[in-house]
Amino acid sequence: MLKNSIFFKKVEFSTITSYAYRINDEVQSGEIGYYHLFNTSLPLIEEGLEFIKKQDHVRNIVLIGMGGSSCGVKALKDMLLNQKSKDKELFILDNTSTYSLFSVLEKLNLEESLFLITSKTGSTIEVVSLFKLIIDYFKIEISNLKKYFVFITDENSKLHQEGENLGIKSFFIPSNVGGRFSVLSAVGIVPLCFCGYDVKALLEGAKACFDDFFIHKKEEILQKAYHYCTHKNANINVLFSYDDVFKGFNEWYIQLIAESLGKKQGYKRIGLTPIALIGARDQHSFLQLIMDGPKNKTITFLKVKDNEKSPIIPDIHFKFLDSLSNKVNLHDLLNAQCDATMHALISENLSVDVIEMEKLDAWHAGYLMYYYELFTSACGIMLGINTYNQPGVEVGKLILKNILKS
Amino acid sequence: MLKNSIFFKKVEFSTITSYAYRINDEVQSGEIGYYHLFNTSLPLIEEGLEFIKKQDHVRNIVLIGMGGSSCGVKALKDMLLNQKSKDKELFILDNTSTYSLFSVLEKLNLEESLFLITSKTGSTIEVVSLFKLIIDYFKIEISNLKKYFVFITDENSKLHQEGENLGIKSFFIPSNVGGRFSVLSAVGIVPLCFCGYDVKALLEGAKACFDDFFIHKKEEILQKAYHYCTHKNANINVLFSYDDVFKGFNEWYIQLIAESLGKKQGYKRIGLTPIALIGARDQHSFLQLIMDGPKNKTITFLKVKDNEKSPIIPDIHFKFLDSLSNKVNLHDLLNAQCDATMHALISENLSVDVIEMEKLDAWHAGYLMYYYELFTSACGIMLGINTYNQPGVEVGKLILKNILKS
Repeated sequence: MLKNSIFFKKVEFSTITSYAYRINDEVQSGEIGYYHLFNTSLPLIEEGLEFIKKQDHVRNIVLIGMGGSSCGVKALKDMLLNQKSKDKELFILDNTSTYSLFSVLEKLNLEESLFLITSKTGSTIEVVSLFKLIIDYFKIEISNLKKYFVFITDENSKLHQEGENLGIKSFFIPSNVGGRFSVLSAVGIVPLCFCGYDVKALLEGAKACFDDFFIHKKEEILQKAYHYCTHKNANINVLFSYDDVFKGFNEWYIQLIAESLGKKQGYKRIGLTPIALIGARDQHSFLQLIMDGPKNKTITFLKVKDNEKSPIIPDIHFKFLDSLSNKVNLHDLLNAQCDATMHALISENLSVDVIEMEKLDAWHAGYLMYYYELFTSACGIMLGINTYNQPGVEVGKLILKNILKS
Repeated sequence: MLKNSIFFKKVEFSTITSYAYRINDEVQSGEIGYYHLFNTSLPLIEEGLEFIKKQDHVRNIVLIGMGGSSCGVKALKDMLLNQKSKDKELFILDNTSTYSLFSVLEKLNLEESLFLITSKTGSTIEVVSLFKLIIDYFKIEISNLKKYFVFITDENSKLHQEGENLGIKSFFIPSNVGGRFSVLSAVGIVPLCFCGYDVKALLEGAKACFDDFFIHKKEEILQKAYHYCTHKNANINVLFSYDDVFKGFNEWYIQLIAESLGKKQGYKRIGLTPIALIGARDQHSFLQLIMDGPKNKTITFLKVKDNEKSPIIPDIHFKFLDSLSNKVNLHDLLNAQCDATMHALISENLSVDVIEMEKLDAWHAGYLMYYYELFTSACGIMLGINTYNQPGVEVGKLILKNILKS
């Protein structure tokens, strides 16, 4: 189970139900594909397992993708560290960083590797460049590419067409699923399925979140979205995730919120600014600013209840160093730090909520990601913007083309 | 060389000189120790080298420290990846994360490991807990701790006293150097020196920045600080660092700005909100919000000119995929992406500046970090706050004590 407790003032449910209807309209229209992925992605699991079964030699899965094509997978890789099959390693290349490229390639034996080139449009310059650099690095014959590469892309994209041309297998992203909402499509399902993660539970978790929202009418998502969208002087939204395993999730959260909700609307500029921290680490960093700086932030704490595999902090007595008076294990200490920080912020009258996951497995991860996708859609509707496009980044792409030409 | 180009409107130099005098007063007073570390840390290099020379068996240096006790080292580890000695690995534990603890400990052979326990006050609960967990994990006899541990702390702290008691070597942080300004003190010098980094060049780079500011009167730091502190509707300061090697530096930047400049001043709440991104990756994420969202952000681009070790993107021709018309190498592509994004943001009339490092070595890293420390001091003076304390985090610590007692 995933429990979301809200510590700021809620509004009457009737105030927000109209937005629920609008989201429902989006779902029914069929134009926004991500809502339905927990169903539409089911056949992919079989297709993925079928494919990888024949690739007995593969030990390394290398995902090449930018933004939405890798963020979600990275989030799940970090969260589900101990839940993949033992015999396959997942690597992710998500930047035009020379250092990162070689630090991955140097670890690989080509004959044990399968590269997943992921690009929704099929023409992302970073991805195409990395694709060529990998071919060159391993001196792979063009006629042999089909042995080492798989494409994940929209049907009939340039990448798909090239795949047909070269005999490379393509998995398809539904055309009505946008990049940053695509983690539960082929973008996430294929690599995670290849690595032995429990993708079925992932989809079931997402479905449970859908049911809680649309069938059981749980109101937390709408309450939170309404609060964030109407408190315009608190438009910085901090996610404070307790444990290093949330590093990838934090990046995914930032992409989802920033790219979905930062939009021009006529002459107006609208947007929520996401910030993501890791606890307890960043109590020694950003926390001071939240406590004493301008009150322009909301804070969501994210924590995991399950402490089963965490060691007890041993009661070694030193002459000069402090002792903990009780026996606590390391994860309990982490959660106590989370609670203490939360109470400190509530006492400053800041808008706080906490998401507590019972444990960290595929089901809960699927629930959590779907929760934030629904939350983003709700905010977009309340702000009156198009949540699903990203017109602002096109200018830079045009300038880049000109720079590269000259 | 490190070049800082400013694209927003500068003020008359006479407007900002008074602040330069105030910083000069801080330097002269001797109360703020970080200003002088490029001199005062010099003897540490010899002391560190002397110590590690006798530890021939050590292959793994494990730093345990929170916030300022690890952030700077992590930044330098990431930036100077290829410049350490080949035979030693540096690990950093900076959180009460069960996963992170074990993922490091499982890689270690105790007899080849040296653990550096870093805590300025000597009583950081996370650090003391990890210290005990490590002792327990490896079943080290208390009388043997001196073989495996080194302390880095203030003179006469609890940790130093315990070190005396147990025969463990302590290196000292000057009492007038605060945690987040301590990277060039024993906090950074000792572990980096142990791992064979060129710490002398690091200090020389810092000295060069000092000279540029105080002797050559370069004005960029003051111009930028003045702009940030006076444009109150643009109080979110984005650092857009191009290359994955800046991940650690980004965290350090966030700690430095957030914890130094987020302060209460009577009933007023003051602060700049730092955000740090990685390019080109986050062009597919946060950029949309900067371009089209509220104009409440300044943006600093950070890039490295040197492209020497980067591979040419091969001119492989595909039937359907785009080709680059010119031969560029991967790092040039990254820098072209940086330039394109920069021009796109300038055309939106946002406050932009760019820091270009000639190359990425210890000298440039030292310059860069000192640049941001001076910048932070300048902002603190302009905002009229105490830059060097962190009163806001004490409340949480008190609540934590109560939670752990009950």
